[in-house]
Amino acid sequence: MVCAVIIGASGYTGGELARLLVAHPQVELVQVTSRSHLGEYVYQVHPNLRKQTTLKFSDPDQAEACDVLFLALPHGEAQQKIDQYARLAPKIIDLSADFRLRKPQDYERWYGAPHQAPSWLGQFVYGLPELHRHELRRASYVSGVGCNATSSNLALLPLVKAGLLDTTRPVIVEVKVGSSEGGAEGNPGTHHPERSHVIRTFSSFGHRHTAEVIQELGLADVSLTMTSVDLVRGSLATAHAVVRPGITSKDLWKAYRSVAAENPFIRVVKEQRGVYRVPEPKILAGSNYADLGFDLDETNGHVVSICAIDNLMKGASGSAVQCMNLMFGFEETLGLEFPGLHPI
Amino acid sequence: MVCAVIIGASGYTGGELARLLVAHPQVELVQVTSRSHLGEYVYQVHPNLRKQTTLKFSDPDQAEACDVLFLALPHGEAQQKIDQYARLAPKIIDLSADFRLRKPQDYERWYGAPHQAPSWLGQFVYGLPELHRHELRRASYVSGVGCNATSSNLALLPLVKAGLLDTTRPVIVEVKVGSSEGGAEGNPGTHHPERSHVIRTFSSFGHRHTAEVIQELGLADVSLTMTSVDLVRGSLATAHAVVRPGITSKDLWKAYRSVAAENPFIRVVKEQRGVYRVPEPKILAGSNYADLGFDLDETNGHVVSICAIDNLMKGASGSAVQCMNLMFGFEETLGLEFPGLHPI
Amino acid sequence: MVCAVIIGASGYTGGELARLLVAHPQVELVQVTSRSHLGEYVYQVHPNLRKQTTLKFSDPDQAEACDVLFLALPHGEAQQKIDQYARLAPKIIDLSADFRLRKPQDYERWYGAPHQAPSWLGQFVYGLPELHRHELRRASYVSGVGCNATSSNLALLPLVKAGLLDTTRPVIVEVKVGSSEGGAEGNPGTHHPERSHVIRTFSSFGHRHTAEVIQELGLADVSLTMTSVDLVRGSLATAHAVVRPGITSKDLWKAYRSVAAENPFIRVVKEQRGVYRVPEPKILAGSNYADLGFDLDETNGHVVSICAIDNLMKGASGSAVQCMNLMFGFEETLGLEFPGLHPI
Amino acid sequence: MVCAVIIGASGYTGGELARLLVAHPQVELVQVTSRSHLGEYVYQVHPNLRKQTTLKFSDPDQAEACDVLFLALPHGEAQQKIDQYARLAPKIIDLSADFRLRKPQDYERWYGAPHQAPSWLGQFVYGLPELHRHELRRASYVSGVGCNATSSNLALLPLVKAGLLDTTRPVIVEVKVGSSEGGAEGNPGTHHPERSHVIRTFSSFGHRHTAEVIQELGLADVSLTMTSVDLVRGSLATAHAVVRPGITSKDLWKAYRSVAAENPFIRVVKEQRGVYRVPEPKILAGSNYADLGFDLDETNGHVVSICAIDNLMKGASGSAVQCMNLMFGFEETLGLEFPGLHPI
Repeated sequence: MVCAVIIGASGYTGGELARLLVAHPQVELVQVTSRSHLGEYVYQVHPNLRKQTTLKFSDPDQAEACDVLFLALPHGEAQQKIDQYARLAPKIIDLSADFRLRKPQDYERWYGAPHQAPSWLGQFVYGLPELHRHELRRASYVSGVGCNATSSNLALLPLVKAGLLDTTRPVIVEVKVGSSEGGAEGNPGTHHPERSHVIRTFSSFGHRHTAEVIQELGLADVSLTMTSVDLVRGSLATAHAVVRPGITSKDLWKAYRSVAAENPFIRVVKEQRGVYRVPEPKILAGSNYADLGFDLDETNGHVVSICAIDNLMKGASGSAVQCMNLMFGFEETLGLEFPGLHPI
Repeated sequence: MVCAVIIGASGYTGGELARLLVAHPQVELVQVTSRSHLGEYVYQVHPNLRKQTTLKFSDPDQAEACDVLFLALPHGEAQQKIDQYARLAPKIIDLSADFRLRKPQDYERWYGAPHQAPSWLGQFVYGLPELHRHELRRASYVSGVGCNATSSNLALLPLVKAGLLDTTRPVIVEVKVGSSEGGAEGNPGTHHPERSHVIRTFSSFGHRHTAEVIQELGLADVSLTMTSVDLVRGSLATAHAVVRPGITSKDLWKAYRSVAAENPFIRVVKEQRGVYRVPEPKILAGSNYADLGFDLDETNGHVVSICAIDNLMKGASGSAVQCMNLMFGFEETLGLEFPGLHPI
Repeated sequence: MVCAVIIGASGYTGGELARLLVAHPQVELVQVTSRSHLGEYVYQVHPNLRKQTTLKFSDPDQAEACDVLFLALPHGEAQQKIDQYARLAPKIIDLSADFRLRKPQDYERWYGAPHQAPSWLGQFVYGLPELHRHELRRASYVSGVGCNATSSNLALLPLVKAGLLDTTRPVIVEVKVGSSEGGAEGNPGTHHPERSHVIRTFSSFGHRHTAEVIQELGLADVSLTMTSVDLVRGSLATAHAVVRPGITSKDLWKAYRSVAAENPFIRVVKEQRGVYRVPEPKILAGSNYADLGFDLDETNGHVVSICAIDNLMKGASGSAVQCMNLMFGFEETLGLEFPGLHPI
Repeated sequence: MVCAVIIGASGYTGGELARLLVAHPQVELVQVTSRSHLGEYVYQVHPNLRKQTTLKFSDPDQAEACDVLFLALPHGEAQQKIDQYARLAPKIIDLSADFRLRKPQDYERWYGAPHQAPSWLGQFVYGLPELHRHELRRASYVSGVGCNATSSNLALLPLVKAGLLDTTRPVIVEVKVGSSEGGAEGNPGTHHPERSHVIRTFSSFGHRHTAEVIQELGLADVSLTMTSVDLVRGSLATAHAVVRPGITSKDLWKAYRSVAAENPFIRVVKEQRGVYRVPEPKILAGSNYADLGFDLDETNGHVVSICAIDNLMKGASGSAVQCMNLMFGFEETLGLEFPGLHPI
């Protein structure tokens, strides 16, 4: 059994992690911390954990040594205490944005301030198994992934990996997202009467997750446009790109199927009949799957590639547990078997 | 033209009032106030008023004299300044709970503190035209109505008015409500990921609006149970009572039709076919109608009476404008003609 | 390993059963049938089962012998073929309403037609483990449960079991339900633009599930009022009753805690702080828990008892699997461990 | 008073038209037809019209002569009977897709079949006042507009009109839509449990409304991608294009403000603070406004232009009434004053 601690477990990614680790057959979750909910039972904040665990939130400054430490703190905090955390555990998985970018100058450009622990950046592996499975197996330090970066990266992965894209043409990714992405802290725009029924394009370009797409896929000209919709869990990336001359739908089928075959949590969804013909986050709530689909206009090479995920699972805590499984040599899918619900 | 001012117009009832008064053919809305949004355009807070008005929120302490003053302040504030407000206008309509109950001891019982201006209580007419049309025509001071009190009062009105109830038996009203009822200020429970998809029975009994049902209908034993559902606008009261022996469905039809005939905003909805057979708030968003329906179990006298309203309209600002129309001798329905949308 | 077959697996309860049985560690689901989707992959209808199973829907007339046969047919069909089905398997769990009522005259009264296999009624055990755990362990034939009957029965169970109710007073149960309750077949009222945002009291009394409450709890005067709300999964029963003189909140605490202690899927939810203070179906999607809460007005004995469930799990397929576990001597909670999601 | 008839009034556009015309101060709606609801009251299908009109649906074959005939039939029907309809009224507004495209070959290309009345195509004016106000004032025959074509056309109008676009670069429009767009007839995909909570990219390219964008804006390389979201009313177009070298945000401000100044139903929404900073359909339900916003990445000329509308109003029936106002010389905004609700 692996002994695990979560620092910062009162937010949504921390809560999802707690749910996964409490039920994980190879993990004992021994401690969760929260400054704002100190002393409360975890289930008072995450009510789905009633009768699942009797853990209470403890003080983050009293965190204990363990085999693997999960950091689920607000962005900017982990980098300030990473040396301290590294003394607690030989393996760390940080779900914040602090260690996702490899180069300090990229961090500063996208996050607007110098990184506080730049020497650590090179030690972290970007925690998306579909891109870094091999390194993850031997990694000590793993970063989390941006949820919209993940739906975007996975939408584009088959095209990039198979070298199908005309990389001289811009890539436009339209991402539609649910409200849990914004985290557990409310603001005037998340008040239910204001947030319900929205189709709200809150970022035309410049979203920070763009940096992870540029870094991980090596694409120079890519933009993400973010639109909030009325859903709690889910991120759908609809990527527009252009393929190289002569590329056909058959080539794309091959590329997508190949990615699905290599990755246990990737599925190709491209049906001719029924209600569920394309990837949709609706049916992925609680699941670690990333569903991929595509359409190619062979007359002009315009490809639309779609990826649906649950932003709290494949886009955050699910991928983190998947990384942990790789780091400890467990079955990659262990503890991540829940397939989602229909209808929901 | 009547010159009107709204004190406290950045909340939901104040905003709805502003919408109605800006478009009212007999009213000139000359001032709206808000301490927290001082200096902002009204449409920055209430975006549906873009291109409708160029009013800005002004300081409530700088309110001007006018023909009719609407108070849409948080509960407890109007009673502290009622003397001051009375100097500004000969007619006042207060939408808060401050002047709804006639007796100081009732106020203290239900609101937990002594009333600050008890001598004023007797001067206010309870602002539900279906109960007090005659007094409203000559009233100077009119209180608003509780939204759930209104759906409950109107659900029971035909039964009480026609003397059909066995008043020795308790009346149980189950009220289902949308999120706008809680007002424009958010709290942890109104954060979209927490408030979406709820069926949350937040008050089993003891809700303050109960006092308005007891007072206005003269029922001794009535309780309201409140359940939040996933909707922004709407209050549906499902009232359970027992009719006197021998009362039949035919008697009820007569009683309900009579109330509908006397009141321009009451409709009886009891269809045998189609999708919309019973009262539903869904189709009332923005409308001032109260739709009534009923079912009688003639074997035991159990009557279920239903009333649907838009809590911000008939349950608050719409009724207030309807009162104003009566107070000034306008057509009762003036400025309240919007019938609602289908589908929505 | 137990070999299982589902007859009628293209509906929502059949699909939920398939999800549970595919993942159940002691069951091999060998066949699922559907006349309307014959030959299609199960995952084409239930997209959450992609990569979970490669089963196709087969012809119900070609059903194979097995250890346990689940019937998830439309109401009225199982009773016509029960002899035939009984030759296929020694154990049958029928999720329809066909075998829930013990007496043929009750069936005829509530379902409006004589039962087609009245001699079978006495052989079935009502499939709610909280009421019949002991009989279920040795049962060969088990009926399913009505979802609203289940939320109502469990809301009232602690009160009835501890003998706290004044049974001379009527019991009124207000049930709020999601759209999946109506099944996978649409009608004009379930078209999204018409069904969204509803609070629709579609049955004032006389709902068929009432019969299951009368039969199982022995209550003579109980009525169920049904209201649809905008949610896919969930049934919340808010039961109004009167306790015997002198009964206090402390007595109720004892009764509710006792039921929770005896039943692995019952939890008492009655918190003083936080967002989730009362039972809510929102957080139960996919879970087999039934959450119970209550409030007592000690001045008049009015008790409000609340039960929240996922109608497709505890209200249908989850309870069926729980029954199967009992029938085969497995751990009662096996395959039903998913605790639900937060937020969702 | 203008005498009006609606052929095909049981659908959503027909119902919305009925709502607008019943309340229009210069119109008498004398007849509405529906084959499937023959003899029913209009309010039985469109419940928001209770107490608004006592019209019943009559037989379309019994349509009477009138001043203006609105056709709200399923696509393909109006073209078959246009000669017959033209004998009934000197002015016709057809809301279907039948007369939107000027060239028969375009119709055949996008709709897959030869047009049945090609000689009529040239007699119709495309019914978007923002593009054809002048011709509409003297038109006898006016076509409706595609709802997604309208949000797309208006998103791009300021850029095209001011000549700001680099027309050698493709234009990609991502449109997010509510469920009322699909019309009043349900299908398996619109069943509430299947349609709720979706983010469903149902058309990557090739949507028929694309033809209206190509025709009306003269753009050669434009594609529309359609995604359904969980909302009843609303279409949001997010258009991606590239501006000519040297074009700045200031140029765009000028172009957008100019279009807003010339058109009573266009507003520019681009705020620096508050919740509602960008165009959103949420607050437009029932309103005829089209809200426009934009963002320009001056480093590479990538412009994101956004338009929000209510698909049943500005995207269909509202624009049709606006056209009628122009055709009859009424105030352009007459009967279209409802500004929408907040919150909703």
